[in-house]
Amino acid sequence: MGDNVKEVRVGLAGYGTVGKSVVTVLARNADVIARRSGIHLLVTHVGARRGAPDLAEQGIKVSQDVFEVARDPEVDVCIELMGGVTTARDWIEIALANGKPVVTANKALIAEAGSPLIAQARQVGVPLLFEAAVAGGIPILKALREGLSANQIEWVAGIINGTANYILTEMASGRTFSDVLLEAQAAGYAEADPTFDIEGIDAAHKLTILASMSFGVPLSYRDVYVEGITALQSEDLEYAHRLGYRVKHVALARQSEAGIEMRVHPTLIPCDALLANVNGVMNAVMVQGDAVGSSLYYGAGAGGMATASSVVADVIEVARHSGLAIEQTVPPLAFQDAKPIQMVSIDAVCSAFYLRFQVRDKPAVLAHITEMLGEDGVSIDAAIQKPVHEQTDLVSIVLLTQAVTEAVINRVIARIEALPEIGAPVTKLRVLSL
Amino acid sequence: MGDNVKEVRVGLAGYGTVGKSVVTVLARNADVIARRSGIHLLVTHVGARRGAPDLAEQGIKVSQDVFEVARDPEVDVCIELMGGVTTARDWIEIALANGKPVVTANKALIAEAGSPLIAQARQVGVPLLFEAAVAGGIPILKALREGLSANQIEWVAGIINGTANYILTEMASGRTFSDVLLEAQAAGYAEADPTFDIEGIDAAHKLTILASMSFGVPLSYRDVYVEGITALQSEDLEYAHRLGYRVKHVALARQSEAGIEMRVHPTLIPCDALLANVNGVMNAVMVQGDAVGSSLYYGAGAGGMATASSVVADVIEVARHSGLAIEQTVPPLAFQDAKPIQMVSIDAVCSAFYLRFQVRDKPAVLAHITEMLGEDGVSIDAAIQKPVHEQTDLVSIVLLTQAVTEAVINRVIARIEALPEIGAPVTKLRVLSL
Repeated sequence: MGDNVKEVRVGLAGYGTVGKSVVTVLARNADVIARRSGIHLLVTHVGARRGAPDLAEQGIKVSQDVFEVARDPEVDVCIELMGGVTTARDWIEIALANGKPVVTANKALIAEAGSPLIAQARQVGVPLLFEAAVAGGIPILKALREGLSANQIEWVAGIINGTANYILTEMASGRTFSDVLLEAQAAGYAEADPTFDIEGIDAAHKLTILASMSFGVPLSYRDVYVEGITALQSEDLEYAHRLGYRVKHVALARQSEAGIEMRVHPTLIPCDALLANVNGVMNAVMVQGDAVGSSLYYGAGAGGMATASSVVADVIEVARHSGLAIEQTVPPLAFQDAKPIQMVSIDAVCSAFYLRFQVRDKPAVLAHITEMLGEDGVSIDAAIQKPVHEQTDLVSIVLLTQAVTEAVINRVIARIEALPEIGAPVTKLRVLSL
Repeated sequence: MGDNVKEVRVGLAGYGTVGKSVVTVLARNADVIARRSGIHLLVTHVGARRGAPDLAEQGIKVSQDVFEVARDPEVDVCIELMGGVTTARDWIEIALANGKPVVTANKALIAEAGSPLIAQARQVGVPLLFEAAVAGGIPILKALREGLSANQIEWVAGIINGTANYILTEMASGRTFSDVLLEAQAAGYAEADPTFDIEGIDAAHKLTILASMSFGVPLSYRDVYVEGITALQSEDLEYAHRLGYRVKHVALARQSEAGIEMRVHPTLIPCDALLANVNGVMNAVMVQGDAVGSSLYYGAGAGGMATASSVVADVIEVARHSGLAIEQTVPPLAFQDAKPIQMVSIDAVCSAFYLRFQVRDKPAVLAHITEMLGEDGVSIDAAIQKPVHEQTDLVSIVLLTQAVTEAVINRVIARIEALPEIGAPVTKLRVLSL
């Protein structure tokens, strides 16, 4: 290290996969970090409930009481990597109260309880950063906060849960949801309890943060409309593909004159769109700004090292800016203030739809269905009709509609489901319409 | 504007497409910019050699002597949008000498003459930023400088010239180079003199900046190996597609133990790779970091509004950080210092190759060619042989090789071209091997 290198002491709580990766990156890349920033980041104190003998051997202080790190006067920057909400919130509050800048990867905490923490950081006058909370290693929050700061953001749309995207990528080759889920669990791509990932909760947490940073509105997790991927059939992915689409679990936030939409649901995307070609556990976020137009950010959305890339970048930024007046730093949610959020109800959201009907094979049933759709002003763009299924005696009819509101499509679906020819609930998927 | 909004006075030189777009963005998005940054950016002085009556009408000072802007004590931040090297360099020197932070979109200037300007900015203690110089609206320099600051960068590979990418995208459907170029010129996608774009010079300028920021080496434009796209035949794009590849004009910089490679040339990319699906005038840059893995940044690489998006983002950053100590700002080329550059000669670069031979139709000519390749240790991955061409009496043989050095492939190509069966120079294209 040269003489000009400033030493900054780092404390972290949570020594799992990401915590270990952060320690690895700080050690392995110390030289390049110092060459870029003039700063040497030294891990001095780690909070690990089950201990961390490997660190203690290197002379790093280890506390099983994680709160000792947040209070340690010999720590300059605090990193929260415990996950969960309750302890993590208490820990960050204590670190901020002790005047320490905080970096966290905790999306649930920021989305559900971030506002008071951000207010506290602002009041104390220290940064609170969480790049790793959204899309892992992709520097998407920095792009929204700084790279695109000249733009009115019109919408953001992303594939921001790697587990769900892995499952859908595998299902695209005809495998069933449950089969792929079991394999993903065995391979470590899915948790033992995969609810957060496959029901869209994790994606909704991340979307909450993206929307807040894009539009300057409060973190408003409860307002996200969420559908998971558990009801998807691989035959729907196959029909969609025949129509020129891939099915992805998309998180989308859009600002219009009517207000803001935030929604997470399975979505048909044209095969030649970049988002449709984001496969496996990878993530991508597309951003539409009024000046820049469309831009896309792609990379690993999870994994220890990719997450550590973002955590350490935040720590470098905090360390570089230590001692700055708070108005010279970039606000955590990109805006100085948050204007009240005006939500667009899901009923008023406009989409093109993929509809799959299972009907008893009678003459003119397709004509009857399209006629009923037409009565409600729903036009058809494409149709597929399949031969009678041997076991169920039903015929599958797949239709792509032009864009209509949810209220309209739900009303006409209810009318169609009441027909005697209809043998099962209608499958309804949205088509990406931006 | 609220009471807390700080006013920052902006002067700009060059009132063409980008200059006008910058003025438009600053006016249209003043509210959102103030909400994000607490700053109101006010254009006070514009240098326009041919005048700008529309601005004068709005009460903005206009000087036909552009240097008056760089010296104006009532300008806080200077933007250079004139293009070219000589006047732009003089202008920036004067602005810096007057203690003003400078933002520029001038890739040729930074790549060819950036080092002394950056040194001057450092010495004066003001920022010099140029996000718009590489890939237009994509915040790729910010990503390299800050978002990925925890990483050792292993390589960057991009499609960073929209004109060349537009031409190749159109040629992929069988059209000829010259036909597409004429159309692109008519549509305004290509300049009247398209040399910089189609010969790879513009891409080499941008690659110079990307490499310097990725690896912490000096700006070293003369070291870039460059091949343009003018010699490409649409039949090569067609053969490549049959083998599962798209042909793109790729700019690539890689760091290895041997040193640094910087090269711009037509390149085969597997059809399912994201880079292969970047079409038309769009740009994308892929970055491989040791922690983050692969990440990609996509968007509009040119155009007034997209370029203005990056210019204004830089101005916001400069305005926010005005008065900071220089070590608290991020260095323009991401590193505090530049270590000497150790170049890998193109002869030592290793690639898989696409080779097209035009041979007189004699028995065993394919066997003869593959045997000669084998003698030099070059293995074949795939082959296509076409029937005799009616006019030329020649047969096309297309081979994909495994990875070998340029020195090896050039030696064996020279030997093969000396065979009596060979009726034309061999076409050689590189396959992306990362």
